[in-house]
Amino acid sequence: MNTATQIISSKDLLKHWQGHRSLTRRVIEAFPEKDFFEFSIGGMRPFSELTSELLAIGAPAMKEIVNREGKPYDEASKKLSTKAQYLEKWDEATEEINNYWRQLKDENFSQTFNLFGQYEFPVIENIFYFIDNEIHHRGQGYVYLRILGIEPPFFWERG
Amino acid sequence: MNTATQIISSKDLLKHWQGHRSLTRRVIEAFPEKDFFEFSIGGMRPFSELTSELLAIGAPAMKEIVNREGKPYDEASKKLSTKAQYLEKWDEATEEINNYWRQLKDENFSQTFNLFGQYEFPVIENIFYFIDNEIHHRGQGYVYLRILGIEPPFFWERG
Repeated sequence: MNTATQIISSKDLLKHWQGHRSLTRRVIEAFPEKDFFEFSIGGMRPFSELTSELLAIGAPAMKEIVNREGKPYDEASKKLSTKAQYLEKWDEATEEINNYWRQLKDENFSQTFNLFGQYEFPVIENIFYFIDNEIHHRGQGYVYLRILGIEPPFFWERG
Repeated sequence: MNTATQIISSKDLLKHWQGHRSLTRRVIEAFPEKDFFEFSIGGMRPFSELTSELLAIGAPAMKEIVNREGKPYDEASKKLSTKAQYLEKWDEATEEINNYWRQLKDENFSQTFNLFGQYEFPVIENIFYFIDNEIHHRGQGYVYLRILGIEPPFFWERG
């Protein structure tokens, strides 16, 4: 394998995603318990519901991609009652994503897979969607925090 | 070059970014003229200023990366007076980004460059930052639009 021509390696793309997930975890932490579940504006969902969406995508999606098993998207099972529960599930998902990612071979990224039985795209496109969708919703979360008078974490903090 | 092992090609990464830029353009268009310059919440910048930031990054950054010329970041020159002017500059930047991107070789992505004389990272990391920063601020823009009672474009529309 000629790694010199890779514009990004699989390992670095995982690191990139997990860096974003680490920042999202910090945004979850920044919300007061009550506001995490109740604050919303413009008819949008509170950040707890956006977090449920992210939990319903990340690890379950990677499991499907690796096992090539198309199960329906399930957000209901990711609806939790406390911030602590969300953070616990977040950390479990971090490990699961790492474990499934290790099973992905470079040639898998260009293969098409019908994720959740409805998103039929090359694996790399679905993975970019997971990351972009997380950044997008977290951007919403930043506005929620600002409106609540809370300073969000620095966007470039990913450690 | 063994392209079979690329998890994403340079061409596809450009397409990915331009897809996002096309969506951001639609978000600019969705703002009423006045709100584009004046609406803000939580002490954040109006969307026109966020757009100036994106214009000060995209094409100028690609020019620097390709020419290996570290000039300071300049947002002041990207401050415009009408939405039409912003859209015009946006389209010019689209072409400039395409032109500079064509001059990037696969091996350039892993090379370190001190962007704007202050962000010293591998080129691929800076490029991911451009894309992620745009998604992040556009996420803010979505909230602004929702608060204004305007339906934003679909997140997955990138054409």
